Amino acid sequence: MHDPFVIALPDINNHAPANLETVFSIGNGHFGIRASDPLSHSATGGTIVNGFFETAPITYGESAYGYAKNHQTIINLPDLRAVTVTDEAGAAFTTQKLVSQELDLHTGLLTTEMILATLDGKRLHLQLTEAIGQTNQNVAALQYTFTPLSFSGKITVTKKLAFYQAAVTDDDPRKARAVQSLQIDDMAVDQGQAIQITTASTHLRVQMALSVPETTTLDLTQNQATEFFVGAEVGPVGNADGDYPTLVLPPDLGTVAEDGQQYWQQVWAQGTVDITGDKPLAQGIHYNIFQLNSSAGRDGHTNISAKGVSGVGYEGHYFWDTEMYMLPYFILTQPTIAKQLLAYRYHILPQAKERARTLGVTNGALFAWRTINGEEASAYYPAGTAQYHIDADIAYGIGQYYAATGDLDFITKMGFEMIVETARFWANFGSWFIKDGKKVFGFFDVTGPDEYTALVDNNYYTNRMAQHNLELVGQLIKAFQDAGQALPVSVSEKEQADFEIIADNIYLPYNQEHQINAQDDSFFDKPVWPFAETPKENYPLLLHYHPLMIYRHQVNKQADTLLADYLFFDDVPTDQLQREYDYYESVTTHDSSLSRAIFSALAARLGMGAKAYSYFMDTARMDLTDLQGNTADGLHLANLGGSWLSIVTGFAGLHYTADNLTITNHLPENWEKLAFKCQYQGRQLQVSMSHFGTEVTVLAGDPLDITIDGVQQKIAAQ
Amino acid sequence: MHDPFVIALPDINNHAPANLETVFSIGNGHFGIRASDPLSHSATGGTIVNGFFETAPITYGESAYGYAKNHQTIINLPDLRAVTVTDEAGAAFTTQKLVSQELDLHTGLLTTEMILATLDGKRLHLQLTEAIGQTNQNVAALQYTFTPLSFSGKITVTKKLAFYQAAVTDDDPRKARAVQSLQIDDMAVDQGQAIQITTASTHLRVQMALSVPETTTLDLTQNQATEFFVGAEVGPVGNADGDYPTLVLPPDLGTVAEDGQQYWQQVWAQGTVDITGDKPLAQGIHYNIFQLNSSAGRDGHTNISAKGVSGVGYEGHYFWDTEMYMLPYFILTQPTIAKQLLAYRYHILPQAKERARTLGVTNGALFAWRTINGEEASAYYPAGTAQYHIDADIAYGIGQYYAATGDLDFITKMGFEMIVETARFWANFGSWFIKDGKKVFGFFDVTGPDEYTALVDNNYYTNRMAQHNLELVGQLIKAFQDAGQALPVSVSEKEQADFEIIADNIYLPYNQEHQINAQDDSFFDKPVWPFAETPKENYPLLLHYHPLMIYRHQVNKQADTLLADYLFFDDVPTDQLQREYDYYESVTTHDSSLSRAIFSALAARLGMGAKAYSYFMDTARMDLTDLQGNTADGLHLANLGGSWLSIVTGFAGLHYTADNLTITNHLPENWEKLAFKCQYQGRQLQVSMSHFGTEVTVLAGDPLDITIDGVQQKIAAQ
Repeated sequence: MHDPFVIALPDINNHAPANLETVFSIGNGHFGIRASDPLSHSATGGTIVNGFFETAPITYGESAYGYAKNHQTIINLPDLRAVTVTDEAGAAFTTQKLVSQELDLHTGLLTTEMILATLDGKRLHLQLTEAIGQTNQNVAALQYTFTPLSFSGKITVTKKLAFYQAAVTDDDPRKARAVQSLQIDDMAVDQGQAIQITTASTHLRVQMALSVPETTTLDLTQNQATEFFVGAEVGPVGNADGDYPTLVLPPDLGTVAEDGQQYWQQVWAQGTVDITGDKPLAQGIHYNIFQLNSSAGRDGHTNISAKGVSGVGYEGHYFWDTEMYMLPYFILTQPTIAKQLLAYRYHILPQAKERARTLGVTNGALFAWRTINGEEASAYYPAGTAQYHIDADIAYGIGQYYAATGDLDFITKMGFEMIVETARFWANFGSWFIKDGKKVFGFFDVTGPDEYTALVDNNYYTNRMAQHNLELVGQLIKAFQDAGQALPVSVSEKEQADFEIIADNIYLPYNQEHQINAQDDSFFDKPVWPFAETPKENYPLLLHYHPLMIYRHQVNKQADTLLADYLFFDDVPTDQLQREYDYYESVTTHDSSLSRAIFSALAARLGMGAKAYSYFMDTARMDLTDLQGNTADGLHLANLGGSWLSIVTGFAGLHYTADNLTITNHLPENWEKLAFKCQYQGRQLQVSMSHFGTEVTVLAGDPLDITIDGVQQKIAAQ
Repeated sequence: MHDPFVIALPDINNHAPANLETVFSIGNGHFGIRASDPLSHSATGGTIVNGFFETAPITYGESAYGYAKNHQTIINLPDLRAVTVTDEAGAAFTTQKLVSQELDLHTGLLTTEMILATLDGKRLHLQLTEAIGQTNQNVAALQYTFTPLSFSGKITVTKKLAFYQAAVTDDDPRKARAVQSLQIDDMAVDQGQAIQITTASTHLRVQMALSVPETTTLDLTQNQATEFFVGAEVGPVGNADGDYPTLVLPPDLGTVAEDGQQYWQQVWAQGTVDITGDKPLAQGIHYNIFQLNSSAGRDGHTNISAKGVSGVGYEGHYFWDTEMYMLPYFILTQPTIAKQLLAYRYHILPQAKERARTLGVTNGALFAWRTINGEEASAYYPAGTAQYHIDADIAYGIGQYYAATGDLDFITKMGFEMIVETARFWANFGSWFIKDGKKVFGFFDVTGPDEYTALVDNNYYTNRMAQHNLELVGQLIKAFQDAGQALPVSVSEKEQADFEIIADNIYLPYNQEHQINAQDDSFFDKPVWPFAETPKENYPLLLHYHPLMIYRHQVNKQADTLLADYLFFDDVPTDQLQREYDYYESVTTHDSSLSRAIFSALAARLGMGAKAYSYFMDTARMDLTDLQGNTADGLHLANLGGSWLSIVTGFAGLHYTADNLTITNHLPENWEKLAFKCQYQGRQLQVSMSHFGTEVTVLAGDPLDITIDGVQQKIAAQ
């Protein structure tokens, strides 16, 4: 049990079918296959294509100018696993028992073993082995192996590309809406079957094909295995009127499996994390890295949705989660994918500029809080559009990508324009005011990362991130100057100076009583949430209390000011950081899956090993244990990235700028050893730490100046 | 022209049919008849019954716990004026010309003269005289007088109780929604016709009847008048399963007209306002008083909707407008109706207690921001439920009613419980915090009257009104003690003391820089709205800017802090009041029809006669001139009451507590004389002022201690 590179049924707490569908889903960034029971035709099973979505007008109880106009909803496509099996008399086999299910993280192969039976007692063993293409991201292979246990004879296997859509029955805003406006056309094909799915409003198209006809008859012999191979194709997302590439079905399981295996070999080679001494955690972190890679769009036009391609929760939308929780992993292990994720933002920059105008800001760009196509899809602006910080989060991600890769080409072509446009937004959106006799710059009616405190003034995180955003312009201008390159986007000297003056004078609220950074201007005036009178079943609070009740109390859904402390390593001295940690921790519910990773990493930095470990425990196996109770809707992608952050930036204390890489050993007591790989400015690094010390090896690339456990040193390549 | 007691077509700016339907609508508090062109079968014409409404689930873009569940929508019932007229050949007459339309404010009679014609040129003069019952509030009379101008012969008059519903085509939140879920049953009657309208969700019923069959043939002689009388009945609103009173149709126009005339005689005798020297304004104020009386529910179970019974705008909902803008008129002229309006609030107190629980407040009651049945119907909580001040507004109204009437019986039976429950709300909703080293009590995440500033901390108006609410408990306890009466609702000494301590320590924000009361904690940190860059057509702002753009600027839709100054006469010294007035005026758009009356009254108090007059001009004839551009949706009831406030509490400087009545002469320059009647503590008073002085006469009742133009005096009865 707890093979660190295999996920099996005993590793999973919740065996409810929809939960297993998510946990054992596999994907390749373009599409994902939920691990449904193939015989059940589950409404929650299906195939999810990244960025294949439909829109529908948002109905508001009371509408207002500038509200997001359309829902954007990812579409649950026909389940590639689904199958119907009948005997000669037409009696249907149903699932008697799920014998085993194993996901091999080294190969990406998912193997399911089941016992099927008819009502009159015929028993049939089914093994389904599934692989998904990684180089060819449009294919999957499903091999069904039937072994009759109690009979010999014919069976009929029916495979169709059919929709079994779920009706959404509750109001939980974290779930998805049903899409009704699809046109499904059968396509004429020489072999097998194919359909074309067209959306009415977004006018998008995807084609799907199977290598087999709708019905196949197999002649089985008792206790002998008969294989039934299904090659599947899930085409790219295209405009409904455009050309569409010809579908080429995979010939066999081996072709697809080998493609997958090579891909995963490279993933582990570039970014494995190995924990010695704690197999469940090692397994957890491997799983998380596996699913991160399975979910990330790699084409520059898709991103990582909040649930990846593992489920339709949050409607397949992309959030700030990408830049703040997932991008760091890709920057340090798969920079090519990191670049593509940022390129996606560049491609929606026109919509972001338009959105800023709608918000009354005359210059700059405001990225949508949640979106697929770049338009704002948040139907509740206090916890949506008001989270302006997404602009600075994206700028931060670009800055970190550049610091770790030195990829000035990307900055020239895409990155600089985004950083300038977001800086312009802050300069035009904010305003000067007087605080304690000093003229300062701030932002009003904003919502920080903590969604339990909305529409406040001078949210510390927002202000600090905006400051960084503005400073990045100057830093990149200097980089262009150093490289003797002209600015790809014109920024006047006056504008540069304005950015600098604003950045220098951005107001960062501080609470004198507690001697800590203040989450916002009014946070400490409010009463602390009545935690003692809140029954455990009333969490998450957002499902049990009116927003007005939540907002008027000191209560955090997740790290907010602490997230700024986490990002800006040198901002806060350790004693203040400790006070801030203690205070904000005491009012944080961790109702957001984005919370614990940051608390873990900061605890590690503060030397609170047990606490760091405890928070990390929750993040590392969050979806394997269904900790949030809603893994059935899809994986918590941000948390998958967050658990990697906990390890690499928490326990290993990794921190970097363009000038410096720092590693600090905060190894948890019960781990013997932590080792991981990463890339930094063209070098392949191996970091290894035990309770006896820390070792960093340059596996490839130039010698490296580095600070290890407080000691500056230079390491030559191996 | 401008007969001060007659409204005629030349008095109206906008002759668009829907605008005329509103302006010439007549009502009796139970129902209203929009003055449609009878031949046009206008979708916006119809009959509006106060409190006859349907519910439908509110759909939210993103829902959350505790949101208002249902829309409540007033129903537009069949138009009693509608008629079809055809000649012997079946050719229909249509309206050629509206010759005249006159509403007599002394009698309540509406007379419409029209020329009708067929396509082949038959011309017919129609005079329609309409009266609505005031003592018998279930009847109306419509007399159609036909005079053929170009022919003699038969005509067929068709009258049906038919629905011509309008489709709502835009998103303006101030309009109403269409109701689809009505059941309409024909009823068997001996004479004429009758229908029963039943709502599916609210399970309410109203019966309507006409004294005539669907078709009547009239034999007309050229140039001779032939009368066609239609008696109409609009029954009470009842439960669909309950007993329903037998409908009794009025026998003729005279019966109904006389009932109306007697009612209006009494209204003018008790509360006329006469302005000498400005006929248009005199007419305006008479019209406003007329429509106020036409709109007010008188049964203790209905109230005054934002549009009265003159239109379906704002869905027939009751707001805080009643207590703050309309109730003062009724308290001082028709205290019986004032009591019934407050009784309505008592009858929805159970729903208010439940609402407080939903908002997380463990004791007390929170009245719905907008409602018919007592449940919250506001689908946008930042400008709805967050306007907690409605609780204190209702308490204020009760306090003023008691101060002016001494009606301890009402306080015993209803008023005290409401004041205690609202005080309990404030005590449990608010919290202690430290401001400038002092422990103070405040309220977080609230919205004051100004809806262009939402979800702020310590809104001055809210805090000051809550303070008054809490103080009222102690004042009424003393009244009970003085009267030797037990408290009708138990309030422990501890609770009394708590209320007192809280009231004494409520935080009232003050801005040092400007030396004025501050609208809220953050108002002065925000930048002032870019008025210079705002084109005229972008007002009202709410239709042209995102709420986030509006909220993050200093901009007022209406009086907010100034409203508190207006209500609490002695709070602010004159020089500070002047500074506050100047500052807040400079950031106020008056996009709310509730704004100008307060600015007028305060300007009068501050001796800015011209300004007071100018604001008053807008309020006095707001609907006659269609100043807000949406009178077609219904009258602006709060403004009708507000214009009375401008005169009586502004120009005449009337101000009262239980112990003192004050009158101060601020007569506008171009008025010769202002005279009005009112009631105060059982006395009937006549106030009369000219530029030569002020005279107050006690027409009936005990001698009166009064302060007139700063001089304390005693006036004996005449």
